Amino acid sequence: MNQVSTYLEQHKDRFLAELIELLKIPSISADPAYQDDMVKTAEFIKDKLIKAGADNVEICSTNGLPIVYGDKLVDPSLPTVLVYGHYDVQPVDPVELWDSSPFEPVIKKTKLHPDGAIFARGACDDKGQMYMHVKAFEAMLSNDALPCNVKFLLEGEEEIGSVNLGPFLKENKEKFSCDVILISDTSMIANDVPSITTGLKGLSYLEVELTGPNRDLHSGTYGGAVGNPINILCNMIASLQDENGTITIPGFYDDVLIVSDAEREAMNKAPFNLDEYKTHLDVNDVHGEKGYTTLERTAIRPTLDVNGLWGGYIGEGAKTVLPSKAYAKISMRLVPNQDSETITRLFQSHFESIAPQSVKIKVTPHHGGEPVVTPTDGIEYQAAEMAYEKTFGKKPIPQRMGGSIPIVALFEEVLKAKTIMMGFGLDSDAIHSPNEHYGLFNYYKGIETIPYFYQYYTKLKK
Amino acid sequence: MNQVSTYLEQHKDRFLAELIELLKIPSISADPAYQDDMVKTAEFIKDKLIKAGADNVEICSTNGLPIVYGDKLVDPSLPTVLVYGHYDVQPVDPVELWDSSPFEPVIKKTKLHPDGAIFARGACDDKGQMYMHVKAFEAMLSNDALPCNVKFLLEGEEEIGSVNLGPFLKENKEKFSCDVILISDTSMIANDVPSITTGLKGLSYLEVELTGPNRDLHSGTYGGAVGNPINILCNMIASLQDENGTITIPGFYDDVLIVSDAEREAMNKAPFNLDEYKTHLDVNDVHGEKGYTTLERTAIRPTLDVNGLWGGYIGEGAKTVLPSKAYAKISMRLVPNQDSETITRLFQSHFESIAPQSVKIKVTPHHGGEPVVTPTDGIEYQAAEMAYEKTFGKKPIPQRMGGSIPIVALFEEVLKAKTIMMGFGLDSDAIHSPNEHYGLFNYYKGIETIPYFYQYYTKLKK
Repeated sequence: MNQVSTYLEQHKDRFLAELIELLKIPSISADPAYQDDMVKTAEFIKDKLIKAGADNVEICSTNGLPIVYGDKLVDPSLPTVLVYGHYDVQPVDPVELWDSSPFEPVIKKTKLHPDGAIFARGACDDKGQMYMHVKAFEAMLSNDALPCNVKFLLEGEEEIGSVNLGPFLKENKEKFSCDVILISDTSMIANDVPSITTGLKGLSYLEVELTGPNRDLHSGTYGGAVGNPINILCNMIASLQDENGTITIPGFYDDVLIVSDAEREAMNKAPFNLDEYKTHLDVNDVHGEKGYTTLERTAIRPTLDVNGLWGGYIGEGAKTVLPSKAYAKISMRLVPNQDSETITRLFQSHFESIAPQSVKIKVTPHHGGEPVVTPTDGIEYQAAEMAYEKTFGKKPIPQRMGGSIPIVALFEEVLKAKTIMMGFGLDSDAIHSPNEHYGLFNYYKGIETIPYFYQYYTKLKK
Repeated sequence: MNQVSTYLEQHKDRFLAELIELLKIPSISADPAYQDDMVKTAEFIKDKLIKAGADNVEICSTNGLPIVYGDKLVDPSLPTVLVYGHYDVQPVDPVELWDSSPFEPVIKKTKLHPDGAIFARGACDDKGQMYMHVKAFEAMLSNDALPCNVKFLLEGEEEIGSVNLGPFLKENKEKFSCDVILISDTSMIANDVPSITTGLKGLSYLEVELTGPNRDLHSGTYGGAVGNPINILCNMIASLQDENGTITIPGFYDDVLIVSDAEREAMNKAPFNLDEYKTHLDVNDVHGEKGYTTLERTAIRPTLDVNGLWGGYIGEGAKTVLPSKAYAKISMRLVPNQDSETITRLFQSHFESIAPQSVKIKVTPHHGGEPVVTPTDGIEYQAAEMAYEKTFGKKPIPQRMGGSIPIVALFEEVLKAKTIMMGFGLDSDAIHSPNEHYGLFNYYKGIETIPYFYQYYTKLKK
């Protein structure tokens, strides 16, 4: 592995220059205007995979944007790592809040990135993190240090829900068969506090529409006598959680896997300062389910949030309207072993059952996703842990996240393999926001750490 | 009075032609583009008052749009009637929903107006109803049948809150001194079911803003741990009413005048069909305070309605945001003897007190108004009742309305006189909406009924 390290040091500048080239292509999947740039990005990656030494490199068509594939199958008796990443990026709006142009990468020092960070859309999510894998692969292969088989699956629709990935995966099960799925699309606690994401929440997202009277009414003439869909919607939403913050939908907690006291204790040892957290968000107090710490609330407890709500007159000044309609977008984050379709069904029937006769109700499910957990006693986690310890000089902290990456559960279901999420970004890297960036330290540290994972994983798998 | 009736019959066509001329002037007070038309309208009315025989006719400047004044003071020992009306009209939007141009009046028959109705903005509210008084005055004066003193106060800012009327009235108390204030700006039940508005509700209208975290957050990363201002706003709004629909703000009902059982019984005798009401609004059930009928809920009970609510993501599809802010516009309709400033204060301090530590709250009062009641045992009501009985052939039904006309309370407070609201429009006349209209039957019936009110009132006042 010394040769790999030397190689990395020697090619540092080129690795950065290549990432900058990649970041210059505006691969916004949500906007059809960038269709050509999506193809250009896929071709850029294809080219780099070939140059790194991958075989069978191809751009696979789907019903949407293409998937880049490549592999290096050194020995069928050795384990196979499937690297997943995505080359599409979020839209750049509000573009006026960027300090530099989103597709003209610049390197600047920040408080958390004293060695400099590269500012561009996709720098961290996920072009930067995805490209680390291409460069780590190149370094291993160039130095005869690839200890196992590798497959790359790099898609272009992650930011728009990976709609075509599922069918593609199911039709190509054999092609993607593997022992472990390796993803760098999450974050770690700090540059000196490495952590590994061991859990993601599932998601059930619904939209509700309440209809009271068949038209907007004068609130003087009808107020107090006709059901006001806004007041009623507020009542219904309020009733979804009790005074302890417990969700009241019957059956909601039935499948929740109880986390052991020992695991909860370990979880609460992660560096976390409640006062700093509150100061950072400018709130006088946190708010959540009784009996759980803030870390537990986000990590291991299912939650319910209204993401949007509207009805009636929302302009300037006063209008005395009793509106016909009120709407809400409501999402629930799920934990193992909750199933998103079951929860969606439970929500729907409960919400319909609590609506009074004075309103009509329509509940529309949006999208869902399943929760996942990477067990800390599995060899995937252990190999990653050893790799981080090797390069960071300290053991990483296992961390369950409140966010959802629906494709992870999909991979596990279709490919029957576990996922390891080796994320090297920071939460403060402003992914999905103006001034997204990725630390140079993080980029290089990722490239350095990945080969150790291959090495330890292959060893442990034997 | 036979001469008056004959006169009305003879001048019917001219009375209608004049109203049509008046309706052609687009006197939209809310839009500064119609400033010249406002002055033109005031001058039209001034001219007609002079032609009808009024004295001291003038256009009085205010800080806003002008007020038209005129009087006929026949004998200081006789009572004085102050006629209030407004010559401004609502904006016409959405103009595409009008079947004919809002300022090109047309006469068409409708189900409820088989003799025809005049379709134009302001036909009912309030040009048509206001102009009845000018024509009734002309008829009385032309036939030596004016039994008392009259003063006209016709303003141009009713649809924008009558902001300049209060100061003007207070500065000119003597000029407007009177024994009774007569207004036609309300409705009656049906052309064969005359009614008199004996009560109007007061109003307290506030806007609330809740701030949770200092920026929009990812609902996965922070959901369940940070106070979501939408969820919290729903809880707070839901808590404002208990399961019986009773408002929970401490002290809210303290000043509510209890309506006697006899009065409630009388009120419930008004023609009202709950099934038709529900069908008309397309609701399966009504909704309101326990222990009160629909008529009572709108007439004699204070109410609380959310008129607007918004927060978070309200576009297409799904966005997993935990928003920084949530807003609501909330109004309460008040009954005698509730005071709007007191109620606003009570709401504000209660709402602030129930906000959890996890949010900051800002409550901004909009505008208010006081409730009014015209006692059915007063001579104002009795004179009006006799007048309707004379012309409609049946006793009118006293009716308290859920709406508010803040200036009525203002008149009563400044001028120390009671108000009688002799409205001749129907609720279905679409005031403030496209295709506003006013029945010809109603216009003529109003002109016919008004002189009887003068006659009976003068007699009863002696």
